[in-house]
Amino acid sequence: MTTPTAPAPIVYETRIPLRWRDLDAYNHANNSSYLTFLEETRIQWLAGLIQDWDAQQSAPVMAASLLNYRTPILWPATVRVQMVVDRLGNSSVTIGHRILSEDGATLHCDGHVVLVWIDRRSGQPTALPEVVRAACAAA
Amino acid sequence: MTTPTAPAPIVYETRIPLRWRDLDAYNHANNSSYLTFLEETRIQWLAGLIQDWDAQQSAPVMAASLLNYRTPILWPATVRVQMVVDRLGNSSVTIGHRILSEDGATLHCDGHVVLVWIDRRSGQPTALPEVVRAACAAA
Amino acid sequence: MTTPTAPAPIVYETRIPLRWRDLDAYNHANNSSYLTFLEETRIQWLAGLIQDWDAQQSAPVMAASLLNYRTPILWPATVRVQMVVDRLGNSSVTIGHRILSEDGATLHCDGHVVLVWIDRRSGQPTALPEVVRAACAAA
Amino acid sequence: MTTPTAPAPIVYETRIPLRWRDLDAYNHANNSSYLTFLEETRIQWLAGLIQDWDAQQSAPVMAASLLNYRTPILWPATVRVQMVVDRLGNSSVTIGHRILSEDGATLHCDGHVVLVWIDRRSGQPTALPEVVRAACAAA
Repeated sequence: MTTPTAPAPIVYETRIPLRWRDLDAYNHANNSSYLTFLEETRIQWLAGLIQDWDAQQSAPVMAASLLNYRTPILWPATVRVQMVVDRLGNSSVTIGHRILSEDGATLHCDGHVVLVWIDRRSGQPTALPEVVRAACAAA
Repeated sequence: MTTPTAPAPIVYETRIPLRWRDLDAYNHANNSSYLTFLEETRIQWLAGLIQDWDAQQSAPVMAASLLNYRTPILWPATVRVQMVVDRLGNSSVTIGHRILSEDGATLHCDGHVVLVWIDRRSGQPTALPEVVRAACAAA
Repeated sequence: MTTPTAPAPIVYETRIPLRWRDLDAYNHANNSSYLTFLEETRIQWLAGLIQDWDAQQSAPVMAASLLNYRTPILWPATVRVQMVVDRLGNSSVTIGHRILSEDGATLHCDGHVVLVWIDRRSGQPTALPEVVRAACAAA
Repeated sequence: MTTPTAPAPIVYETRIPLRWRDLDAYNHANNSSYLTFLEETRIQWLAGLIQDWDAQQSAPVMAASLLNYRTPILWPATVRVQMVVDRLGNSSVTIGHRILSEDGATLHCDGHVVLVWIDRRSGQPTALPEVVRAACAAA
């Protein structure tokens, strides 16, 4: 059930220290914090690929997210977040993820998110930025 | 694409006012806030079914979440969150959801979450509380 | 110590439902959520005074906050937040606040925040918008 | 106005990476995130002093917070948070803080928080844990 071996090459990986505020009244990381970990990882990746990534003519919009919660995250901890490319489309990319313990021995969460690039003016889907496509294709 | 008509009977519905802090630097509700809206709805529902719902021998744990983001949520707004039962198991229930504008005309998000009841002492899955099963079956 | 009677006229009051996610691992509302309650109240007030309040040439910036935590907030609850004008300057206003239980019988928090209006282009303090000054002076 | 030199010895210092989710629609770190940075620092400090710090007979409760916002925090960034002892009482301690840029050149915020130790059973103020008193007195 928890197989932290990567089927696809890792496109980007980062480490995120848990904050005590990520915990909820159950004393483990709240389910919504997982999306924040993924977001932080994704934006670090994009900011490394595209200068002024958030001031371009097109912008990535989240179309869907799927999270399988495997093992609770307790404070203190630093999590490792890994991104893989599950599917590369014309205007969208499906990014698989794994949230692991820092030593990689425990899988906390896996799943994927679907990102669609939208033209800011028209609001319509538009082609992935070339640098994003290249980074995904190279992985 | 946005069909806010319910295929299954609504088990619980509530209204949640958006907070300005739900917005992110894109000026619309952050993707993680959607899970908080669902959580609030779910816990209101459980708290209405089970007295001291969080002090019982078993507790619901989130096993998975699937969110389809349909239309951004802008501040100010109040969202309507509807829960339906997609699948009722022995120790788990799959709860479909829709996050709608207050007037019901716009579908912001749909999807489902899977909840598993866990025995607090053993950490193992255990039967759904009878009152939860009854509420789900009645829907 | 907890005197929920207002020394100054109330400029604005709103009700905010607590969310379960506002709780932390201590099972009461986290100290940072109080600032979110005040922010929501303040922005509702500004949005009612100024059309496109966040697209004006000047914008309010928070210079300081003082919070006295009086009584923990437990879920479920709706809090009442009251704003008074403690001091009205040329480019700044000090807004006193009280966070109360919905029935007004319990004082959860009092204190104040200092807002300074900044010219977006120069980054320098600028005169309060006339409508804000008028609303503060009328109180 | 921004004097990042310490008047009192530093009791504890840590580094906290900003998350993109700390930003609000103004595109800088939201005022409530500052309290989360202070909380994370404080709890790291306590967890290093007291084993099972959150399972003791007494617990620290926040009585007040004062924040002076000096310079906005933009993403990406890592902040340095420094704690000093401003005042040591019998059952309370006033902890001064500074939130700095990672290189220490920019002061983002200063102020203090007041912590009171409460007996969990009686709910009344109780003496500071000896190890906390010793750490504060040694600073």
